Amino acid sequence: MKDLGLLFAPRSVAVVGASDKPGMGRGVSEGALQSSIADHVYLVNIKRDIVLGRKCYHALSELPEAVDTVVLCVNSGLVNDYLEEAGRLGIKNAVVYASGFSEEGSEEGRRLEREMHDICERHNMLLVGPNCVGLYNKVDRISLYATEPLFPEKNVQRGIGAVAHSGYINSNLMRTMPDICAYGVSVGNAAVCSLEEYMLYYAENEHVNCIAAYVEGIKDAAVFEQALRAAAERRKPVVIMKSGRSKKGSAAAASHTGNLAGDYATFEALLRRYGVIVTDSLEEFNSTARMFAVLDGKYPSGVGIGAVNFSGGENTICADMCERFGLELPTYEEATRETVKSVIPAFSTARNPLDPTTEMFSEHDKVKTMFEAIFNDSGIDMFVLGLELPAQLAMKDRTCISVFKELHAEGKLIPTFLVPSFEKTRDAAAVKELQDIGIPMLSVGELAYKILANLTAFISYDHSNHTLSLAGAPCVSEQTTALSESDSKAEISARGVRVPGQFKASTKAELREKLSSFSFPVVLKIDSPDILHKTEAGGVKLGIGSIEEAESAFDGIMASCRAFSPDARLDGILVQEMLPEGVEMIVGVKNDRQYGPMLLCGMGGIFVEVFRDAALAPCPVNMFEAREMVNSLKSSKLLYGYRGSAECDVDALCELLVKVSEYAAENSSEICEIDLNPVRVFPKGRGVAAADALIVKYA
Amino acid sequence: MKDLGLLFAPRSVAVVGASDKPGMGRGVSEGALQSSIADHVYLVNIKRDIVLGRKCYHALSELPEAVDTVVLCVNSGLVNDYLEEAGRLGIKNAVVYASGFSEEGSEEGRRLEREMHDICERHNMLLVGPNCVGLYNKVDRISLYATEPLFPEKNVQRGIGAVAHSGYINSNLMRTMPDICAYGVSVGNAAVCSLEEYMLYYAENEHVNCIAAYVEGIKDAAVFEQALRAAAERRKPVVIMKSGRSKKGSAAAASHTGNLAGDYATFEALLRRYGVIVTDSLEEFNSTARMFAVLDGKYPSGVGIGAVNFSGGENTICADMCERFGLELPTYEEATRETVKSVIPAFSTARNPLDPTTEMFSEHDKVKTMFEAIFNDSGIDMFVLGLELPAQLAMKDRTCISVFKELHAEGKLIPTFLVPSFEKTRDAAAVKELQDIGIPMLSVGELAYKILANLTAFISYDHSNHTLSLAGAPCVSEQTTALSESDSKAEISARGVRVPGQFKASTKAELREKLSSFSFPVVLKIDSPDILHKTEAGGVKLGIGSIEEAESAFDGIMASCRAFSPDARLDGILVQEMLPEGVEMIVGVKNDRQYGPMLLCGMGGIFVEVFRDAALAPCPVNMFEAREMVNSLKSSKLLYGYRGSAECDVDALCELLVKVSEYAAENSSEICEIDLNPVRVFPKGRGVAAADALIVKYA
Repeated sequence: MKDLGLLFAPRSVAVVGASDKPGMGRGVSEGALQSSIADHVYLVNIKRDIVLGRKCYHALSELPEAVDTVVLCVNSGLVNDYLEEAGRLGIKNAVVYASGFSEEGSEEGRRLEREMHDICERHNMLLVGPNCVGLYNKVDRISLYATEPLFPEKNVQRGIGAVAHSGYINSNLMRTMPDICAYGVSVGNAAVCSLEEYMLYYAENEHVNCIAAYVEGIKDAAVFEQALRAAAERRKPVVIMKSGRSKKGSAAAASHTGNLAGDYATFEALLRRYGVIVTDSLEEFNSTARMFAVLDGKYPSGVGIGAVNFSGGENTICADMCERFGLELPTYEEATRETVKSVIPAFSTARNPLDPTTEMFSEHDKVKTMFEAIFNDSGIDMFVLGLELPAQLAMKDRTCISVFKELHAEGKLIPTFLVPSFEKTRDAAAVKELQDIGIPMLSVGELAYKILANLTAFISYDHSNHTLSLAGAPCVSEQTTALSESDSKAEISARGVRVPGQFKASTKAELREKLSSFSFPVVLKIDSPDILHKTEAGGVKLGIGSIEEAESAFDGIMASCRAFSPDARLDGILVQEMLPEGVEMIVGVKNDRQYGPMLLCGMGGIFVEVFRDAALAPCPVNMFEAREMVNSLKSSKLLYGYRGSAECDVDALCELLVKVSEYAAENSSEICEIDLNPVRVFPKGRGVAAADALIVKYA
Repeated sequence: MKDLGLLFAPRSVAVVGASDKPGMGRGVSEGALQSSIADHVYLVNIKRDIVLGRKCYHALSELPEAVDTVVLCVNSGLVNDYLEEAGRLGIKNAVVYASGFSEEGSEEGRRLEREMHDICERHNMLLVGPNCVGLYNKVDRISLYATEPLFPEKNVQRGIGAVAHSGYINSNLMRTMPDICAYGVSVGNAAVCSLEEYMLYYAENEHVNCIAAYVEGIKDAAVFEQALRAAAERRKPVVIMKSGRSKKGSAAAASHTGNLAGDYATFEALLRRYGVIVTDSLEEFNSTARMFAVLDGKYPSGVGIGAVNFSGGENTICADMCERFGLELPTYEEATRETVKSVIPAFSTARNPLDPTTEMFSEHDKVKTMFEAIFNDSGIDMFVLGLELPAQLAMKDRTCISVFKELHAEGKLIPTFLVPSFEKTRDAAAVKELQDIGIPMLSVGELAYKILANLTAFISYDHSNHTLSLAGAPCVSEQTTALSESDSKAEISARGVRVPGQFKASTKAELREKLSSFSFPVVLKIDSPDILHKTEAGGVKLGIGSIEEAESAFDGIMASCRAFSPDARLDGILVQEMLPEGVEMIVGVKNDRQYGPMLLCGMGGIFVEVFRDAALAPCPVNMFEAREMVNSLKSSKLLYGYRGSAECDVDALCELLVKVSEYAAENSSEICEIDLNPVRVFPKGRGVAAADALIVKYA
């Protein structure tokens, strides 16, 4: 594991390519010189004696001390020579901004980047980039960033650890909240240090109270998983924005960096496991990260929201939004209602959400009484106020700010959030003043409620319920081979999954003999490793009630399978017990190239196919996770005694999911796919059984 | 129909309660005095001689001319006396701000409001309010508004007609886009003029190029429908934000105004019919209205989007968003690609969306060449540029602005939209400059793409495909009566809907005789107006193959129905043809109290119930609309030859929908509900039939 400590907090830095001319060489130098280590920042330029009024060195070898980091503001053709020199001088870290490497898709670019990687490996150097905008550290006040570092007055104590596959997005995170980003790094092509490694560093860094990562693709699933686990175990929120979900998007992402954009559903399932907050837009990404950074660990202890708005219209919309995003607005206790009623106008009602009318906000004491009553209600864990804080503050804005500050000073403030209805130019000072007492201004409108739903998901997540490990990367052989139905069933049966009682018969005589000690009705199926879709081949006969029927079915199946597939190996007939009726589910496993086997569970038949009503999770799953999967299906109500039918044995279904997932995880280098379709779920207490099974292994 | 022309554009106004003291009386007076009719604004206050430096009259009767409108800044107790006096003086319009009427829920409040209504009716006066913030008209520069009118330098020629059930929301619409709101009116309690009437006025007013309505509930469905039709026929966009969707929301809405919040799905189905844009948040509402107002009728002629972004990250997200919102990013033509390639950096690809890199935007001519090439591509109807326009404009922002202005001046600009990724303080002058050449800045992030989807829905809507009329309000009797199955089938059969061949038999002898000329198999069902759920009562026997079986089934059904419901009238047995297999649908009608009969269509069984996969439309529907309904079902793929099964007779299903809807529309005062469940859809060319039918009529 790489130790990135010195990379983020070097004690001395050389800026190669420092310049007075506008551009990278000047921008980086200026940022570095605003740093706390300015006395140990050395400007280097082969052609200059003085840059920005400071002595400029002509070569790295001339520097008065051995620096920790070299920053290269030179073009791609010069980078590797400087790196080689730095390595020889014992410099341990480098930052390379230049583009012109693998991102160009040219052979020369790829060659240069491989060379860069090898130089760093040889000299044991860490490197940020190339093709990036660098990194900053506002805890120690250090900028190796390509643009203005926007240092706040006071160093950041705890804040966002930002990392992005896009320099533009990294810069925007920092620009929109310069005072609460603790660290930021632009990954670039990740020739040496990867996004996953930066995330792991943030997960373990106590100055980071929220990790914000813009991700185009993951290179090293194991380090990624390690970072997510480290964060989950520390209850540190991780906010991820992933692009490249669509086909067009994936194409665009591939051209931007060289990463393989994994399948989005798989990626989401993995993130859900680790309690990661996945956002759908850059603004949601920024605003969610800001919220967590401002809360700084002081999360609501439950999900009950008390909400106040300044107009009936907004108040109604607030109720609509909470219902839409699954947010809870508990009814206030009697005592709360009484206190609230004593201060709001007579015709208002003390309900949640509450519209106490704007006029009331001219009376500071009444507002304070009202807020305090809501804060004290035992059902309320957080407070939401519809507020815009426009550039010209209104009376109500000032009242709210002063009441919040008083309640904060008195130790009475509960987690509080401002929800604006409209995009506006906001009063920056007022926003900051509230931020300083832990109250974040969320994004506009429905996005604010979505962000609150992100928060409630985070506080509802408990890592101890989850299996925080991956099965490991699978074999990536392109060759696979399918087991026959009977071999497939034998494998899963050995793992404790019930399959129908069965025997094989290769001749009619054997069939007759074995049937004499077997109970009817039975199913006859072709036994062939070459016929996967048995029904299509005429290879299945249901509801056979006697030996005579069975014999005739034997002939029929053999004839039609032979006709269907003249070259298929026909090993005989499989005779199976007819399982009782039950709700039919699909259970499957697909081995993902990056994240290993993924378990799928869905309602049988067209539900999965037409409505895509399926749940996905990395293997293995535990009982808690299995139940979460089942209950996440819209169709799960069919399992719980729908319309008077018997409640199904969901416990047994979950146990089956656990067993299948453990089997897949333990054999992740062998198993490519598993398909149990259908799995029949019987009434409560009567278990489940896989009526059919198909296992595909890597050849 | 009320003529609101003079209400919105009075030639003279009296402000009663005018005052120098901060508050309503001063705010309204100041606004009125900024109006173009300032010379004909008369301030009235019984206690003052001079207000705001102008002569103040003591009574309406003292005014030097007969005014068109009286504006009452007095409290609720005084309002009706002033109105009575105004009426006697022949004043035709009034604006009342005061609250203290029906919105308080008190008997006294309701009484005062009824009296107000009666006074206006007696004197033939129009009235805005009470409990509102008034109205403004920026076409003629007239403010009767409670807050600053924010008149733009030049009068608005064409812009938004805003109307809202919430004063706060109305004011926010105006404040966030003061220069493109043509008219605005706050509805308040609508004692005289309703939201629907204001909308109709806007629909017919040529200065309104977009109607924006915040709606809590509709009072007069007929006028509402008239307004929507008038707008649809003129291709004038109507943007609606409706609150009170959730149960909590409805409760809040009911307390805010006295309106009945209708069922949201029905309301949405109605709006869809008229091509209305329905928004989900206030910011979406504002931004969509702003977009339409800025476009001012110059809509894209198709849905093909050409998109450019300044970073790979944003570009990938743009592709993701377009896929998510169903927006089309056509591949550029060869010629376009060649031209674009000639100006972008070598390693960029001329794809759509395009990331030409930020650096390129230092070269004005190259950017112009690139934009022009995209504008000229025959697959491109509109242009989307990812741009933030922050308070401190960057080089790329300036380049884009100047290129757009040049292309506009040369008549080469196609409909263009700015899509920001982050909420920021924007450069107001730059936003205005682009707005003036018809380029709107949309809301942030995913909302921008949603708004573009609103636009493509609008331009794809063609009112000539639709039935722009409602069946009319239904009878609202609480008493209903259900027809028997045979009577229900007879009614729909008379409208051309196929039902299974059938006869009734009240005795076994009759059964035997009639069966002799009927073909087996048949179904036997109880014939009783009192037993609605026949299967539960043991009143159904399927697959009867002979006369003997039928006789025995007759006895069985009678016995079990008698046991199930001793008091039920048992009229005998209904014998039915067994229909062939087919895909089973549900077709139903529910008569909505406000909007009349609504037609429902869904896939049979648990699809409708578990996945709520159903389509809703007002009756009657035409074939185009019926097909839209069917195709909007996720499960509709089951009708189109799913997994090798035969394609179903969708035409016949649509014809059935049309027939049922026409029947319901023509009998809307009689029919409460219709349930055809299942309707069986046979393979193409073989039609459909209703296997069961239930009609419930108002008693």
